[in-house]
Amino acid sequence: MSITIRDVAEAAGVSTATVSRALRGLPHVDPETRERVRQVAAELDYVVSPSASRLASGRTGTIAVITPFIDRWFFSSVLSGVSDVLQERDVDLLVFEVGDPGTNPGLPPERRLRGRVDGLIVVTLPTDAMRVADLLMLGLPTSFIGTTWEGSTSVTIDDISAGRVATQHLINLGHKRIGMISGRPRASTSQSHRAQGYREAMEGAGLAPDGSLEAYGYFSVQGGEDAMTALLSRPNPPSAVFVMSDDMAFGAIRALQRHGIRPGSDIAIASIDGHELAELLDVTTVRQPVVDMGRTAAEALLARMVDDATEPEEIISPTTLIVRGSSVPQERTAQVAGSQGRSASSGDA
Amino acid sequence: MSITIRDVAEAAGVSTATVSRALRGLPHVDPETRERVRQVAAELDYVVSPSASRLASGRTGTIAVITPFIDRWFFSSVLSGVSDVLQERDVDLLVFEVGDPGTNPGLPPERRLRGRVDGLIVVTLPTDAMRVADLLMLGLPTSFIGTTWEGSTSVTIDDISAGRVATQHLINLGHKRIGMISGRPRASTSQSHRAQGYREAMEGAGLAPDGSLEAYGYFSVQGGEDAMTALLSRPNPPSAVFVMSDDMAFGAIRALQRHGIRPGSDIAIASIDGHELAELLDVTTVRQPVVDMGRTAAEALLARMVDDATEPEEIISPTTLIVRGSSVPQERTAQVAGSQGRSASSGDA
Repeated sequence: MSITIRDVAEAAGVSTATVSRALRGLPHVDPETRERVRQVAAELDYVVSPSASRLASGRTGTIAVITPFIDRWFFSSVLSGVSDVLQERDVDLLVFEVGDPGTNPGLPPERRLRGRVDGLIVVTLPTDAMRVADLLMLGLPTSFIGTTWEGSTSVTIDDISAGRVATQHLINLGHKRIGMISGRPRASTSQSHRAQGYREAMEGAGLAPDGSLEAYGYFSVQGGEDAMTALLSRPNPPSAVFVMSDDMAFGAIRALQRHGIRPGSDIAIASIDGHELAELLDVTTVRQPVVDMGRTAAEALLARMVDDATEPEEIISPTTLIVRGSSVPQERTAQVAGSQGRSASSGDA
Repeated sequence: MSITIRDVAEAAGVSTATVSRALRGLPHVDPETRERVRQVAAELDYVVSPSASRLASGRTGTIAVITPFIDRWFFSSVLSGVSDVLQERDVDLLVFEVGDPGTNPGLPPERRLRGRVDGLIVVTLPTDAMRVADLLMLGLPTSFIGTTWEGSTSVTIDDISAGRVATQHLINLGHKRIGMISGRPRASTSQSHRAQGYREAMEGAGLAPDGSLEAYGYFSVQGGEDAMTALLSRPNPPSAVFVMSDDMAFGAIRALQRHGIRPGSDIAIASIDGHELAELLDVTTVRQPVVDMGRTAAEALLARMVDDATEPEEIISPTTLIVRGSSVPQERTAQVAGSQGRSASSGDA
């Protein structure tokens, strides 16, 4: 490439640093200057690459991912997708693991971010976490994954639809007493949207959601086991359960096995995720493309870092219902796809 | 703390930067100066903390983890342990995911590390990866996890013992045709040590390891399934298989299920890891304390960054055999602990 950032700076009558900041969407460039720089760059056919712009501007060439967990499937898969894109673009990845969003996420202090990173990716923190607003005050380009934030780019699934599809699948199999294992009392938007989908499907089928058939599983395997054990000890247990994550579904299945109850045949389970091991454990699940969601969030962030004319977007990733033995008896799995069959279920009152 | 780095510098007749470098084990301080600074610091009762020394010296306050994968259980668990310790000590974590060590790990170029990090943690890269030596040329304190490197700190399990214990357990159950699912042709030390343990146990029992009962599973679930499927198609399949990782064991169990073969009752499986889902999938495994190994490696690294008089150590983490239904028929699981029972097995020739 023969056109350099110096050529653009000279033609626009500004410093190379201003060119870099303007083209990468960083703050502290006034709108007129930004527009002039962009026009000049377009006329000269100058294309900035993140690594070139890093070298030119002396910026950090680093982005930070702020995530509740590193070692749970959803979060490590997201991180891996983000990492893929950053590697391709020669951008470094700082990871801040802030702990359970239900307790007290220890967001990194401003001094650990300001001047050290060019952008942020925030993974499924509750939007009422006051300090998320503090993070945004840093003025860095930011992508959210799993939650939306007005005025910021976000990558989510349609959580209402995912909850509705999983629940409708159970309804279509003939279940009426359908319970729910959700996350935690202090809900993220994804959790409350999944619950909304469950309620919409129930009400659409003329079924009243029963609060005594709901339990918290805290998005962990053990939590899912505890929640299902609690549901099984209710006076009139559910015949099917919508579970908000595969990890919790794995735990719920362990609880069923310990009670001698056959998943699918005796009590049906449908969840959300598409965990690598859901096939092995024969779990019906609404698959979300988690690695791709990480990739997409990283690409959107880099695009905004290069060119702030890129509008923030709410990106909705597609989901797919995968029917397996946890919702239908093993011998019926092959036939059930798309059917509305099954008129009765062992636990129906 | 009333004693500052300036006090130490003045008393030792050197700059504060030299004090910081000397006490944190960084290069470019001659041994005599280093010793004098350490004596003065000891006399003044001056204790350097990583975050204090970062502020004092203007170093990066950052360490890098170089890992083949982010989203596989072993690696995400290690990362989480490392992250725990760094958070406590206010040190930032850069993550470089370099891809499958069997192919061509894309180690980060020197310019992405030099001056940007104070230390390195290298996770299970094959020691014949030539560029690992290049990394060490950076002169940064380095901890290895899963592999040893002469002159560097490492945290591993006793892989020979782990392979021997898993195999001996299968021998004690009466198996004679014991196969092995290992990782990949280009082996890490941990893989070749596990294979050595398998061979030692076999030979100790007067059994000849049979090369036709070995297959590569590439440490993935799918790879484990493919490897077990290959073993089942041999003219005289094994009655038991030692599998080098839980992920591969999960895949191997899926292969058995697809063949209508009951794990434990028909073909026994014993592996290594202690994956969170091994209990759910009823897999016998030699548990390694993976999160703790990440913590230990990070603590050892920080200790060396603070005080280079800390000798590099080869730290061996303890392992525990957990017997479950994949190696003994479900109804026998409760009784078998410690027993030498089971005299015959379906597949014995």
